[in-house]
Amino acid sequence: MKKAVCIINGPNLNLLGTREPDIYGNVTLEGIINSLQQSYPEYTIAHFQSNSEGELVNKIQELGNEYEFGIINAAAYTHTSVAIRDAISAVSCNFIEVHLSNVFAREEFRKESLLSDVCQGVITGFGAQSYFMAMQFIRSQSGG
Amino acid sequence: MKKAVCIINGPNLNLLGTREPDIYGNVTLEGIINSLQQSYPEYTIAHFQSNSEGELVNKIQELGNEYEFGIINAAAYTHTSVAIRDAISAVSCNFIEVHLSNVFAREEFRKESLLSDVCQGVITGFGAQSYFMAMQFIRSQSGG
Amino acid sequence: MKKAVCIINGPNLNLLGTREPDIYGNVTLEGIINSLQQSYPEYTIAHFQSNSEGELVNKIQELGNEYEFGIINAAAYTHTSVAIRDAISAVSCNFIEVHLSNVFAREEFRKESLLSDVCQGVITGFGAQSYFMAMQFIRSQSGG
Amino acid sequence: MKKAVCIINGPNLNLLGTREPDIYGNVTLEGIINSLQQSYPEYTIAHFQSNSEGELVNKIQELGNEYEFGIINAAAYTHTSVAIRDAISAVSCNFIEVHLSNVFAREEFRKESLLSDVCQGVITGFGAQSYFMAMQFIRSQSGG
Amino acid sequence: MKKAVCIINGPNLNLLGTREPDIYGNVTLEGIINSLQQSYPEYTIAHFQSNSEGELVNKIQELGNEYEFGIINAAAYTHTSVAIRDAISAVSCNFIEVHLSNVFAREEFRKESLLSDVCQGVITGFGAQSYFMAMQFIRSQSGG
Amino acid sequence: MKKAVCIINGPNLNLLGTREPDIYGNVTLEGIINSLQQSYPEYTIAHFQSNSEGELVNKIQELGNEYEFGIINAAAYTHTSVAIRDAISAVSCNFIEVHLSNVFAREEFRKESLLSDVCQGVITGFGAQSYFMAMQFIRSQSGG
Amino acid sequence: MKKAVCIINGPNLNLLGTREPDIYGNVTLEGIINSLQQSYPEYTIAHFQSNSEGELVNKIQELGNEYEFGIINAAAYTHTSVAIRDAISAVSCNFIEVHLSNVFAREEFRKESLLSDVCQGVITGFGAQSYFMAMQFIRSQSGG
Amino acid sequence: MKKAVCIINGPNLNLLGTREPDIYGNVTLEGIINSLQQSYPEYTIAHFQSNSEGELVNKIQELGNEYEFGIINAAAYTHTSVAIRDAISAVSCNFIEVHLSNVFAREEFRKESLLSDVCQGVITGFGAQSYFMAMQFIRSQSGG
Amino acid sequence: MKKAVCIINGPNLNLLGTREPDIYGNVTLEGIINSLQQSYPEYTIAHFQSNSEGELVNKIQELGNEYEFGIINAAAYTHTSVAIRDAISAVSCNFIEVHLSNVFAREEFRKESLLSDVCQGVITGFGAQSYFMAMQFIRSQSGG
Amino acid sequence: MKKAVCIINGPNLNLLGTREPDIYGNVTLEGIINSLQQSYPEYTIAHFQSNSEGELVNKIQELGNEYEFGIINAAAYTHTSVAIRDAISAVSCNFIEVHLSNVFAREEFRKESLLSDVCQGVITGFGAQSYFMAMQFIRSQSGG
Amino acid sequence: MKKAVCIINGPNLNLLGTREPDIYGNVTLEGIINSLQQSYPEYTIAHFQSNSEGELVNKIQELGNEYEFGIINAAAYTHTSVAIRDAISAVSCNFIEVHLSNVFAREEFRKESLLSDVCQGVITGFGAQSYFMAMQFIRSQSGG
Amino acid sequence: MKKAVCIINGPNLNLLGTREPDIYGNVTLEGIINSLQQSYPEYTIAHFQSNSEGELVNKIQELGNEYEFGIINAAAYTHTSVAIRDAISAVSCNFIEVHLSNVFAREEFRKESLLSDVCQGVITGFGAQSYFMAMQFIRSQSGG
Repeated sequence: MKKAVCIINGPNLNLLGTREPDIYGNVTLEGIINSLQQSYPEYTIAHFQSNSEGELVNKIQELGNEYEFGIINAAAYTHTSVAIRDAISAVSCNFIEVHLSNVFAREEFRKESLLSDVCQGVITGFGAQSYFMAMQFIRSQSGG
Repeated sequence: MKKAVCIINGPNLNLLGTREPDIYGNVTLEGIINSLQQSYPEYTIAHFQSNSEGELVNKIQELGNEYEFGIINAAAYTHTSVAIRDAISAVSCNFIEVHLSNVFAREEFRKESLLSDVCQGVITGFGAQSYFMAMQFIRSQSGG
Repeated sequence: MKKAVCIINGPNLNLLGTREPDIYGNVTLEGIINSLQQSYPEYTIAHFQSNSEGELVNKIQELGNEYEFGIINAAAYTHTSVAIRDAISAVSCNFIEVHLSNVFAREEFRKESLLSDVCQGVITGFGAQSYFMAMQFIRSQSGG
Repeated sequence: MKKAVCIINGPNLNLLGTREPDIYGNVTLEGIINSLQQSYPEYTIAHFQSNSEGELVNKIQELGNEYEFGIINAAAYTHTSVAIRDAISAVSCNFIEVHLSNVFAREEFRKESLLSDVCQGVITGFGAQSYFMAMQFIRSQSGG
Repeated sequence: MKKAVCIINGPNLNLLGTREPDIYGNVTLEGIINSLQQSYPEYTIAHFQSNSEGELVNKIQELGNEYEFGIINAAAYTHTSVAIRDAISAVSCNFIEVHLSNVFAREEFRKESLLSDVCQGVITGFGAQSYFMAMQFIRSQSGG
Repeated sequence: MKKAVCIINGPNLNLLGTREPDIYGNVTLEGIINSLQQSYPEYTIAHFQSNSEGELVNKIQELGNEYEFGIINAAAYTHTSVAIRDAISAVSCNFIEVHLSNVFAREEFRKESLLSDVCQGVITGFGAQSYFMAMQFIRSQSGG
Repeated sequence: MKKAVCIINGPNLNLLGTREPDIYGNVTLEGIINSLQQSYPEYTIAHFQSNSEGELVNKIQELGNEYEFGIINAAAYTHTSVAIRDAISAVSCNFIEVHLSNVFAREEFRKESLLSDVCQGVITGFGAQSYFMAMQFIRSQSGG
Repeated sequence: MKKAVCIINGPNLNLLGTREPDIYGNVTLEGIINSLQQSYPEYTIAHFQSNSEGELVNKIQELGNEYEFGIINAAAYTHTSVAIRDAISAVSCNFIEVHLSNVFAREEFRKESLLSDVCQGVITGFGAQSYFMAMQFIRSQSGG
Repeated sequence: MKKAVCIINGPNLNLLGTREPDIYGNVTLEGIINSLQQSYPEYTIAHFQSNSEGELVNKIQELGNEYEFGIINAAAYTHTSVAIRDAISAVSCNFIEVHLSNVFAREEFRKESLLSDVCQGVITGFGAQSYFMAMQFIRSQSGG
Repeated sequence: MKKAVCIINGPNLNLLGTREPDIYGNVTLEGIINSLQQSYPEYTIAHFQSNSEGELVNKIQELGNEYEFGIINAAAYTHTSVAIRDAISAVSCNFIEVHLSNVFAREEFRKESLLSDVCQGVITGFGAQSYFMAMQFIRSQSGG
Repeated sequence: MKKAVCIINGPNLNLLGTREPDIYGNVTLEGIINSLQQSYPEYTIAHFQSNSEGELVNKIQELGNEYEFGIINAAAYTHTSVAIRDAISAVSCNFIEVHLSNVFAREEFRKESLLSDVCQGVITGFGAQSYFMAMQFIRSQSGG
Repeated sequence: MKKAVCIINGPNLNLLGTREPDIYGNVTLEGIINSLQQSYPEYTIAHFQSNSEGELVNKIQELGNEYEFGIINAAAYTHTSVAIRDAISAVSCNFIEVHLSNVFAREEFRKESLLSDVCQGVITGFGAQSYFMAMQFIRSQSGG
């Protein structure tokens, strides 16, 4: 049976690779997802990106009871969205919170996450590798 | 002449009845609305639910000058949305803030509401009955 | 068998109807209690008002294990009395916290209640109707 | 060659002119934009208003690398949206933050802006003139 | 016609003159009241002291609509009693807040008064003279 | 000559033994006092319990200059009563603050005591033994 | 021998009587000083007003060791001037802090005074009478 | 009839053009004033700069009831001067607060202004253009 | 069978008796331990003192699963050591927190303990007697 | 050439596997290190654990300029040690901060890390897998 | 070529030697300057003292670009003057902040300095020696 | 008779000269001590450096009653060690707190020192010269 993971990406992550390449590198979000799929071919990877908090909540509701594991980079909404927090709490999926940059080395308000304590754990600061590390954990949990 | 009330429900309330039934019971949001309609047949009840802050603002703008009374359970947005607050302030409708759970007995951040002081009053912690109590108040105001 | 509810009112509520009638209306506390009794004739309603924190604690202790439901408007003591909070916690009665005015639209210190998380729920801002709404909830719980 | 400015307006600004005319006057948002266009005919002015945070992020992404200057009145989102802040940071456009009312003379929470330090500057409290003053600055920068 | 002033003294002020005479002097509360009466013979002076918050509220309610002016030294309750504040607000009497010691030169928590903004003014730090200064003000207001 | 100790107990402690026996055990306050008297027969033990802050202040004033040592469990008033603090400061008696439960392992507001720094010391978390430990200290001070 | 008092008035008090007469009345600062002098003819009253913090410090230094008593209304500098506080501490004069309006019923930042704990006491909220009450205290201290 | 505007500049602005030219440019304060006068020849422009808080208060008092509009860049005193705030409140002139740099993108303490809520509005971050934009608003108000 | 108690003392307690004898008395730490052993001969008392946080953690780990009860005076580390807190939590021993002085009557930072809520209870302010009172409690728990 | 990684573990981690196995599982720290070594045989893994802050600083200094990458689980010192932070900053090694449990779902004081912003990134909440994920990142950086 | 240092002293320092000699000693400010000049004859020492913030700003502007090194004891203005901070930043002179007393052992508000981070360094608590130590540093920097 | 000074250096200072030479220069800690000894040959200088808080406490206890003066650079422990503070308080030695860098111009948490108010004074920001300035003060106190 095929295993499955859903990946939820929040606001402005669609710009990845095209903006501030000295910080975020040249890889696009699509590039990361493709690369993840290639590295973990035994997993079906569902991907969703939106700049809208409501659409993210919708998608978490939709996917969150179908998938055992999820990866979420809520970007800016990490720090402001009780709605996404509540959606994560409401579904059975175990979400892993990831960030590309080291949020603890940036503005003060980025140090607080509304999602961390309702997620399985947090991976922050490893660029695109943050997603791969989340996948490694998921595989370790499912005998992968 | 028929009386009318609009009911606005915020993020994740669409999951009611299907998640955590030991906390929230088995009743769905649709079930609550239907039951309200049956109990208050002399009222036309308009209902809207969305997970999107913007759509909630849109609907408050749309309905808020047509209805004398409204009931709003903004759920997670209660604690984060200045936009919904401003929409409530901008329209003539008297909104009553309701919550299913006792928000004061939960996480610290749920104790602060951005809506309370621009609403008529607040009812919190009575489950689905919170909506019925709001209707009772509305009826008491209109000779019901 | 007759049902019973105890109603506890805190400091300065004895002045109701005689002071600031433009804010609080002309109805007296006695008037509210009588009206409640008339509206809910199937309930025995015990009423107690005091300006003394200690007397309120005494009465909650006395009535609190005899009555299944109570309604408490602790007024000023809402914001300062750990003793009343402890009394509510110590007895089996389910108390409903009510307020006449919208405490969230007044001074900052009125936004914090020491009682809310040990009560069943909170009703605030509906004038005398706040008491009636509490009664409606109580009736809904007991097949009323 | 024609010069261009994009103007982004946030939640509830679509109600301008129709609500609280004693505070905000009778002029509509459309009226302001038209008047700006007439006063600055040498500029192509793109205008976008939405009550949705996500749509505002989308539009800033879409327009933000095409226009050298932008004017943003994020209204309520000024105080809550890290997502809009990140979008402004991600694009090359120089945004000018404007407000109709003097936000410093209103509620405490309106004094904090998440956008100010990633914008060129801030203009607040001059009614519709705030937009015209922003245009004057833009013209001063481009030899206008 | 005789003029009248009510003087309300709070907890532990009954010990005046018998404790810490190096701080508070040898004069008793009774001595102060007698001396005030002698200095202002044209005034009927009603005096009440209690260690109980509730009794103080009761007395303010009882006297507060009969007297045009009052002097209140709520002592410890100055810093903790919303109930006394509400009683002062509820009656028509203009209260003057007095303190024997300079509360601003003592513990941090004595710097905050819940009564000051609902009183006419505050006199603090002048020992028994604080009461005489309050009387002088009252006389100045009534042509005394 | 007989030695003497006064014991002051605050609000809701009269319920001891009858409520929440799994937390507080089955021993009543009367039982504790009797047991103390039996264990320390050489001491006259005066005991007073009240739910009223004012009565507690009255009693501390009354007993506080007659007894060299006192034991006080002000319960809820520990965290809110400047009046009791001032009474303790005003009398010559050395008070020992005791608590049955470990107040530092409960709600945040129970961590702050207004009495600790005007008492000799604090004993908290040892159930009824807290009183016995206070007596042991008193005996150690008087050659007992 | 003639007795003497120095009166120090801070910024904007020179406008008294000419601005906001509905708040501050029609009496000028000169009028108050003259009236004080008439009421207390046995005192030499030195008066100084300045809008400059430095000049106020200079004058306190100059007069502060010559006069036994002083009256200071530092107005806005009450809340911001450590320099005036240090000057008061450095001289032997006993200063009485006065305010015309009830500073506790105004903006939050007016509740904090940097001067109160280095003054004898504080009189606030009695209009021009605040100065007369200070004089009364001074007379009471010098056998006046 | 000639129109008139007063411009008040605070501490260290006299150094403009001679210090940190990479931040503030090469234009001097005199240059800005001259340029303003040339651009708005129909206005009499009174200009005053001082490093002294007291002198600024004096000047605001002197000019503040003669001019309908004023422009104030209080520089460092923006964040510390209640005295200047009170002076602005005391006079009839409508002041516009301006800043050269974007104060919200600098040290934390520069984000708070004591003047903003008593001014008409705020313009910050546009260099010398901030003054011109203020003039544009003034002209828009007077049919200019 | 012999009973056993471990006593852990933190930094600078080795100086007891040799420094500030007016505060701490002339008794040394060794003297206290010896005296405890004499008073409770039926107990084996293991004692350890160190100025090093790490060595204290080591010793708590070593002794903490062998002893049913422990007494800990972590001195300065009480207020700063999460490591000692975690060690106490990790072992089965029930620790009693003791302090010689009344920490609540000293510097602000000494009022917060990182250990209290993971200990059985707290005894503070009774000098060397604090240790004896802890022993009394331990004996009361083990039929001593 | 062999690659090398140093792993630094802080206080109480030596107890792993022997305490609270329902939380931390049965695996010991030695077990984790051995398993890591087996999974990454191409890496020389240096391991050090200590309960002493100073020894941890010593070891970071010693290893920190020899190794390109390090993994640090400072446990309790994460929240209190500026010394370890400074050591990490002083050496060239890129440290990855790991935690076994989700520190964001525990006590408030565990949410703040003094190390995060001087480390490459943070991995928290994945049990022993946190170390493996750190190794994966290291391998991804070195062509592993 | 002669070397030069400017010394700036703030409010109330002109009283040195004449007030509170038990704290500040008998030496006057003039005495300190003379003594400094004698100890460092190779330096031209310019000295300025004022109680006025504005005059201090003026003098820092005047001297601050002529002198390579300065010594500033801003006294009370240390804690309140953004204007002096900005003046120090605006000139090229390297200022050393000195204080006579140990400001960290006094009132809470004296612990915060607005000047420290724009000065070279800080010397506090050494009485008049603080100035000499500053001179020693200056000499060490210039081959003195 | 030879004079003596003890110098205590805290964590990571052993790395001086070998790390971040652009910030800290090329001089080693040994170099500073040697240079101090050469400059002050009449003093016996005892030097101790450790990365361990406990060892620093041990050494302060050991040397602190033998030496009249000490110099302490507790580095990171400055901000976190109550234990070192207590050790300094417990011994008779007068300690001078020194820092190489200007701690007020670095991270927020470096602005608070737990040692300053129990030391004689503080010298911060002068690099190695900070130690020499401390020696100068010591010499000034002992007729050096």
